[in-house]
Amino acid sequence: MKERNAIELYDTTLRDGTQGEKINLSVQDKLLIAEKLDEFGADYIEGGWPSSNPKDEEFFRKALGLRLSNAKICAFGSTARKPDNIANDPNLAGLLASETPVITIFGKTWKAHSAVSLGLCDEENAELIYRSVEHLKKEGREVLFDAEHFFDGYKDNPAFAIKMLLSAEEAGADRLVLCDTNGGTLPNEIYEIVKDVASSTTVPLGIHSHNDGDLAVANALSALRAGAMHVQGTINGIGERCGNANLISIIPNVVLKMNGRFRHKLQLNQLTPLSKFVYEILNMPPDNRAPFVGRSAFAHKGGIHVSAVMKESSLYEHIDPKSVGNRQRVLVSELSGQSNIRYKANELGINLPADNAALFKTLVQRIKTLEHEGFQFDVAEASFELLLRHQLGQFKPFFTVLESKLHIESGKNRESVDQAVLKIEVCDEIELTAADGDGPVNALDKALRKSLRGFYPEIRSMRLVDYKVRVLEEKKGTSAKVRVLIESSDGQNSWSTVGVSPNIIDASLQALSDSINYYLFTYRTEKANRLSTAQSAS
Amino acid sequence: MKERNAIELYDTTLRDGTQGEKINLSVQDKLLIAEKLDEFGADYIEGGWPSSNPKDEEFFRKALGLRLSNAKICAFGSTARKPDNIANDPNLAGLLASETPVITIFGKTWKAHSAVSLGLCDEENAELIYRSVEHLKKEGREVLFDAEHFFDGYKDNPAFAIKMLLSAEEAGADRLVLCDTNGGTLPNEIYEIVKDVASSTTVPLGIHSHNDGDLAVANALSALRAGAMHVQGTINGIGERCGNANLISIIPNVVLKMNGRFRHKLQLNQLTPLSKFVYEILNMPPDNRAPFVGRSAFAHKGGIHVSAVMKESSLYEHIDPKSVGNRQRVLVSELSGQSNIRYKANELGINLPADNAALFKTLVQRIKTLEHEGFQFDVAEASFELLLRHQLGQFKPFFTVLESKLHIESGKNRESVDQAVLKIEVCDEIELTAADGDGPVNALDKALRKSLRGFYPEIRSMRLVDYKVRVLEEKKGTSAKVRVLIESSDGQNSWSTVGVSPNIIDASLQALSDSINYYLFTYRTEKANRLSTAQSAS
Repeated sequence: MKERNAIELYDTTLRDGTQGEKINLSVQDKLLIAEKLDEFGADYIEGGWPSSNPKDEEFFRKALGLRLSNAKICAFGSTARKPDNIANDPNLAGLLASETPVITIFGKTWKAHSAVSLGLCDEENAELIYRSVEHLKKEGREVLFDAEHFFDGYKDNPAFAIKMLLSAEEAGADRLVLCDTNGGTLPNEIYEIVKDVASSTTVPLGIHSHNDGDLAVANALSALRAGAMHVQGTINGIGERCGNANLISIIPNVVLKMNGRFRHKLQLNQLTPLSKFVYEILNMPPDNRAPFVGRSAFAHKGGIHVSAVMKESSLYEHIDPKSVGNRQRVLVSELSGQSNIRYKANELGINLPADNAALFKTLVQRIKTLEHEGFQFDVAEASFELLLRHQLGQFKPFFTVLESKLHIESGKNRESVDQAVLKIEVCDEIELTAADGDGPVNALDKALRKSLRGFYPEIRSMRLVDYKVRVLEEKKGTSAKVRVLIESSDGQNSWSTVGVSPNIIDASLQALSDSINYYLFTYRTEKANRLSTAQSAS
Repeated sequence: MKERNAIELYDTTLRDGTQGEKINLSVQDKLLIAEKLDEFGADYIEGGWPSSNPKDEEFFRKALGLRLSNAKICAFGSTARKPDNIANDPNLAGLLASETPVITIFGKTWKAHSAVSLGLCDEENAELIYRSVEHLKKEGREVLFDAEHFFDGYKDNPAFAIKMLLSAEEAGADRLVLCDTNGGTLPNEIYEIVKDVASSTTVPLGIHSHNDGDLAVANALSALRAGAMHVQGTINGIGERCGNANLISIIPNVVLKMNGRFRHKLQLNQLTPLSKFVYEILNMPPDNRAPFVGRSAFAHKGGIHVSAVMKESSLYEHIDPKSVGNRQRVLVSELSGQSNIRYKANELGINLPADNAALFKTLVQRIKTLEHEGFQFDVAEASFELLLRHQLGQFKPFFTVLESKLHIESGKNRESVDQAVLKIEVCDEIELTAADGDGPVNALDKALRKSLRGFYPEIRSMRLVDYKVRVLEEKKGTSAKVRVLIESSDGQNSWSTVGVSPNIIDASLQALSDSINYYLFTYRTEKANRLSTAQSAS
């Protein structure tokens, strides 16, 4: 019974989440998110549906190489198609081939679906579920049974819905997960139904809710109150139609409001960074109004409140923002930045002079100005570090682009010319170089590297791995300012840099320059450190 | 008792809604929204806080001239500052001066707030509430009492909280509205507390909830189940921090799920237009994932479902989308087969030749190839429609870009030149145009428009509203293919187009060209349709 007290966290961002409109994740994206979820404390990570597409199969192959400390990877799929052909069912075979320790299969628990979609009578459907679960259990896997359309099915015909659950239970399913697949059930209905199911079954129950009624979070909490001990959802509530239940909201409600306990101790103060991380990988703007983690979630506007808020936050905030990694903002004042900058500098190992108030003030002002212009340093820490060190006199750029000229030409058949000419100041010399490229950013990148590699040969081992652009001022159309985020890697480490300009080429050049400068700075500092360590050791 | 059965709809978009970050409404905007809310069937429209700013005062003056058929305009404010100076209190005077039939005043019902913020003992606060309500009632107004921080107050000290409510009740308040001001209460707590309050008071109860726990809608529904008959919220849930309870979600849940009845018969099928109308006035992009009214709310992606959805919608949709003025959509994605494309064509009103299997096969193949190259048609329906119609011979581009040349120059101080030269074939003429811009995409856009507007003057009314770039092949660094997504709008409708190329300029040009072609196509088709309807009617 002890196990029942702790709640299991089951994430399906990588599977159900990607059913959302405009959601697209590469295999690499999925692996990065899986690692982050594990670090945060998730118990289960549903990675995809192996039989449905080759990308998911590649994910499962590569996921075998992940070193996870908390989470188990799950493969998702349906029961077999026919009860009399279990051993050769391609879907079950695909699930087993994914080699995950856990398999989640869904089966029909709404009579109408069983009859209309599968054309099965009650007994046949019960047998299909039984045999599918049994087959996977025989292979030694942990098997979770997702009862598809359970709540609609129960409301329509409770005896049928429960019978299907019992069939999975008898076959050895480890969890029975009740799904509000169409997302239209009300919290009080969820509560009553889960209560009833708990009295008819013995296997631990889970809840999987969708947000079609704007109630997915409430529905998940209702089920937990009624006795479920396993909760499914996605980061930021991404998912088909209106999305899945948002784990980012469920988690703090459970921990901070309901006195609930998850099986693994969660990094609750990493909730806001986790939400941002996933938005960033999705290339979606974060929802500023998001409960708990949104930029506005603890932003106080009303002038009257402000002094009271500062006097006694608990009277105006439902939780302490720090507990979820967020922070209070007071919209009328500009005082909020200093402590953050100190905190960040400390994290990066940068010494801030305690006694130089004027310098620090200039620094804060400079960062504020840039943030106001659209620089986003929380997702471009390398640029932030360079800026900080530059202002503190700890870093001098390795080169400066004095002039850039681009010539881009394309004809009807898409044959094209992309030529960059750069004038660069490097090591007290003025270099003029030109390069052709595939596209203007590539031409710039090539010209930059061409002129620099004679001076800094180590830049050969770094490369750009991601490049993202976002328009900052929607109202201004094509003349709007854009923010370019670049991620670079040397194969071992990766770092992010940012550039902002109404000119996409200029913004790209800023982010590219920062990226190379950052690499040179850290490469040379590390080399120097290694050298001095070696010398002092000898 | 009959009145108790019908629920009152109280909208505070114009007051509490405008407390949201980045929310700004002019007096004219507010008047437009008020008229729309009245038309929809709202009972109360809270227009602002007269003493807090001159804009709200202007709104109330002008609102006197509105001819409303359902709704009453309400002015919002606080109780007096001190119990011994009611008659001269500037806030109460301002409320009366607004000449609204209804006044909503809030008072403290959390002991800590009363003691800390106002410095009043229990009796003094009770008297302040009593006298403030009494003063307004004497002037013949309908008075609603907003019990600020009620749920936190009740949890802290129920006797105090109830005492303050009774004070308002005794003074003649027409409604007692229980506010979850900090937004952190859970739905089951709301239910229990409202039940208890209902047993201790006689005046009809209302609920005012905030979304800090992602539970505002559930909380409002909980209160209604427990006996409240008056619900407050905002359109699209705008409001301070995480927003107010979203009426757009509450209304259909009450009507379609809970069998509830609002006092005025609501135009439920105008719910989606109402939501869009408010987003448009706020100049905010609509939330595609919004329950009930979002563009994705009834969008089906998973390939397997599609044929079943088409067979029997009620098995896959929690409500009929038409009941709330929304519609079903099927998303075309890589996973989809022929049936998705047929469905999509049907939805777009495009006739596919049933007998031409070869043409259809070519079409499917073409779409698959483009998707493989990185085109993502589920997020760029306009490009998809053009492609489909082009292949079917129903659309011929209005122009073709034959050549493009871009010259981009920037110096050390970021002074820059961005010049585009385009050679375009349009209406059997060859046009050569050049334009300077803020950044290369803007220069292209300007050159394109410059050469086209002589031929197609209607393009003046369309504009680009969002521009997104994503790298498709991460491993290839700056020479990787990029996907450009553009969203455009003519103020009423918006549409998305896509371009893919290793050259960001080329990809942008594709998406821009599609955007303009799509607008011209739909604009001209609609005009032709209107014309032919007019002719056949005459």
